[in-house]
Parts: sequence; C-alpha cells; structure tokens
Amino acid sequence: MSSKPFSVLITGTSRGLGLEMVKQFAETQRPLSMLFACCLDPANSEELQALAKKHPDIIKVLRMDVADPDSIKQAAAQVGSLLGQSGLNLIINNAAIAVYSPFLKSSVEDMLNCYKTNTVGPMCIMQEFLPHLQAAAKHSGMPGMSCRKAAVVNISSNLSSNEIVLYDKLPMVPYRASKAALNMITSCASLELQKEEILCSLLHPGWVRTKMGGSDGEIDVEESIHGMIQLMNSMTDKHHGELVNYKGQTIPW
Amino acid sequence: MSSKPFSVLITGTSRGLGLEMVKQFAETQRPLSMLFACCLDPANSEELQALAKKHPDIIKVLRMDVADPDSIKQAAAQVGSLLGQSGLNLIINNAAIAVYSPFLKSSVEDMLNCYKTNTVGPMCIMQEFLPHLQAAAKHSGMPGMSCRKAAVVNISSNLSSNEIVLYDKLPMVPYRASKAALNMITSCASLELQKEEILCSLLHPGWVRTKMGGSDGEIDVEESIHGMIQLMNSMTDKHHGELVNYKGQTIPW
Repeated sequence: MSSKPFSVLITGTSRGLGLEMVKQFAETQRPLSMLFACCLDPANSEELQALAKKHPDIIKVLRMDVADPDSIKQAAAQVGSLLGQSGLNLIINNAAIAVYSPFLKSSVEDMLNCYKTNTVGPMCIMQEFLPHLQAAAKHSGMPGMSCRKAAVVNISSNLSSNEIVLYDKLPMVPYRASKAALNMITSCASLELQKEEILCSLLHPGWVRTKMGGSDGEIDVEESIHGMIQLMNSMTDKHHGELVNYKGQTIPW
Repeated sequence: MSSKPFSVLITGTSRGLGLEMVKQFAETQRPLSMLFACCLDPANSEELQALAKKHPDIIKVLRMDVADPDSIKQAAAQVGSLLGQSGLNLIINNAAIAVYSPFLKSSVEDMLNCYKTNTVGPMCIMQEFLPHLQAAAKHSGMPGMSCRKAAVVNISSNLSSNEIVLYDKLPMVPYRASKAALNMITSCASLELQKEEILCSLLHPGWVRTKMGGSDGEIDVEESIHGMIQLMNSMTDKHHGELVNYKGQTIPW
C-alpha cells in the first residue's frame, strides 16, 4: 500500500454508513490529506460536525444535495479550490434513498426520486469531479488502478441483482430499479475511464442495521464499513466495473 | 394454440417496430377480438390510420403518452369501456425513446426522459391495466401462463444486459440504464403476478433497422416482428420474468 497522502470524498455522511465511513477513514486510513464529508444539511448533522471537530486537519464538511445538479457543481468548485494539484483520489457515492414499496404499489414520484438520487446523482458527481480524478490519476505515478490512485466506488446493493433476493422482506422496487440502473451506468463509465486508469467499482455493503436497512439487518455498521474499507484498500483493475460485497465476493447482476 | 378470440394492446405504434407489430397481428394472428394501437399523436400517424381503416373491425387507435400517467389512466378507462368481461389478454409495452450519448456526455434531462418513458411508463401501464389483465386471466379457463391468456411483454434490449455489448457503436447510456431498470421492475412484477398467472416477460427485438436502431441494424423490421410474434405464441411459465431475444434465446442481464 502506498504511504503517499491521499484524498477522499464521501456523500451522504450525516448518518448510517456514510457517517461511519468518515469515522473509520479518519481513524484508520492514513496518511489522509483531505476527507470531504458531504451531506444535505451540515448545520443539522451534529455527529458529523463532532467528528470534523475531532479531526479538523483532515475532515471538511460540505453541503451537497446529490439530487440537485447545481449543488453538485458548487461542491465540485469548492473541492477544486481546496485541492492541490494532486487531485482527488477517491469518490465514494454513498448517498441514497430507499422506498419500500412493491411493484404494484410503487408511485411515479418514488420511482423518479429514487432515480434522481441513486442513479443520476452519482452520474453527475462523476462528471463534475472528473477533472479532479484525472489530476489524481496523472499525478500518482502508480501503475494500474487503485483507490489510492484514482477511483469511484458507487455503493450499490445485492437488491440490484437480477437474482431477486429478499423480495418478501424488502420489495423496494423503486430502489432496486435505481440501483440496477446505477450498476449499468457504472459499468459504462468503467469502459470510458479505463484508458485513464480511473477505477470504477460497485460495492454492496451487506444488509446493515441502519435507519435505511432497518432492525432486521444482518450486520452492524462497523462490520460493513470495516469490510468495505479493507476491500477498497485491495482493489485493483480486476474490480473495475464489478459489483462486489463487503466481504470481497463478486455479485452477479 | 387456443382458437378463442383474444385482445391485444400495443404502445408506440405510429412507426417502426410498433407499427409493424400492429400490421402482423392484424394480418396473421386470428381470431383477434380487439387490437388497441396506442400512439402519441393519432391524428398525425398516417400509416397507422391506414392500417386501422383496412381492419376497422379489429384495430382501435388510441392516444397514449406513456410518459404521462394521466394519459395512461385515460387510455385504461377507454379500453375498459370497449372491452367485454373477457378482459385484455396481452399488453406489449413497445413505446420507448433512445438517446445515443456515452456516459460522460449524458445529461440529467436525457436520463430522466428515458426513465419516464422506458421504465416508469410501462410500470404505470401495468398498474392501470391490471384489472383488465386480471379479468382475462380469470375468464380464460386455460391452465398455466400464455400470451393468449393474460400477459405483459415489455420490449427491452440486449443493451440492458450487464454483458455490455456494442458500446462503441451504441453507447446510449440513458437508454441502457432505463432498460436495465425495466428488466428489474418486470422481474419484480413477475413475482407479484405469478399467483394470478399473469405472464410477465421481456423481449429483445434484435438490432433492427428502424429510425431508432439506425441503418447499421442487423435485421429488418419484418423479421424482428415475425420472430417476436412466433415467440409470444409459444410463451409459457418458463418465460416468466426472463429476457429473451426475437429468436427465443435467453439473454442474461
């Protein structure tokens, strides 16, 4: 593993997986030059602000509404003004919304909201932050692909797979559809960014006991994030365009 | 094959695949009690109107904007008033839009427009027309599943598959994402409609030389529709929730 300082941006960090990710990155992943923790409402994200206060040299809290392209543009400009020429090494698109409805009860509104946040949002972020990723890829001097060089990790789900699992407990059709589409655009992006050696991968965090996952979840937040960070540390070209769970197992989709 | 009269509704019938589908259904699939040919602008769909004039006892042209839930509701009410108690046997969700942009050049607008038309539209149609399909399933007296009993066939594409094909020639990211999501919602619907024996399937028409497919397409419209109609005639429970091409071969997605 490289010991060069690296920079990370994570979305949806006010609670759940995103918050724990900021915590574990700040505490265990060094040397870290900058950790951009994006959330919808920084002023009302007490736990995140407390973390930022504990690591003022590293964590920078930013407002970003991933469903609003203008907000993404603004955040990209802010990040650009804070980053040096070494660019941004890793983007983790974690922000997402969930809707629990089955097919016959899914509304147009829920379908579109999930798509805007879970699919189109990550696309806009990848487009807007691309210059920062390109700078990182060029500046790194490392061969091949890795999360410490230049990478986008999109948090997907095993619910995006064509092997439909857990339908009785988690029908979540608007969410499943948006994550299937996220897999598709990530796969397409991986083809376009291959030449520049920007890694594009998809992670399934497991069924986690969070506000979104509910109390029936199979693992706790700490275990999920620990697994995903370990995995990101060992990601290479072979994870490019793939969906992998927090234990490193490939999921067909 | 049953010789009972059956009814069909097809969307996007003003040109291309949909228009040819209406033609071949009217000419070769009998006994047909009613063929609802839906399109965005009936008044300006000359070829469709000419077909309807040729088969006035069978073809009924209806206005339907699949991107507008209210328009779908209105069409469902109209169809309901024309159908007898034998219900509607087959819905073919063919209407779709294509956008040819690669990932890095795809816009939010294109992503949302494709999703509204290609994914959310078919969902709304399945929801709104469900009572007519249920009536058909109950009335048929046939065992198992078939397109002459009660079925929804959603026209998808091999471009929806996670095995990304033809990316250089057909990047079409907003379209690919919307079709991947269409596969997902159709698969979910198949689970919910299994008990009522309403068949839900996905068809890939081939790469067809139409206005949408372009002149590089591999087959002509007649061949594609001929193959798909033959396939629909032989569809059973084993096609439920599956994506199949016009030759009857299963496509992984």
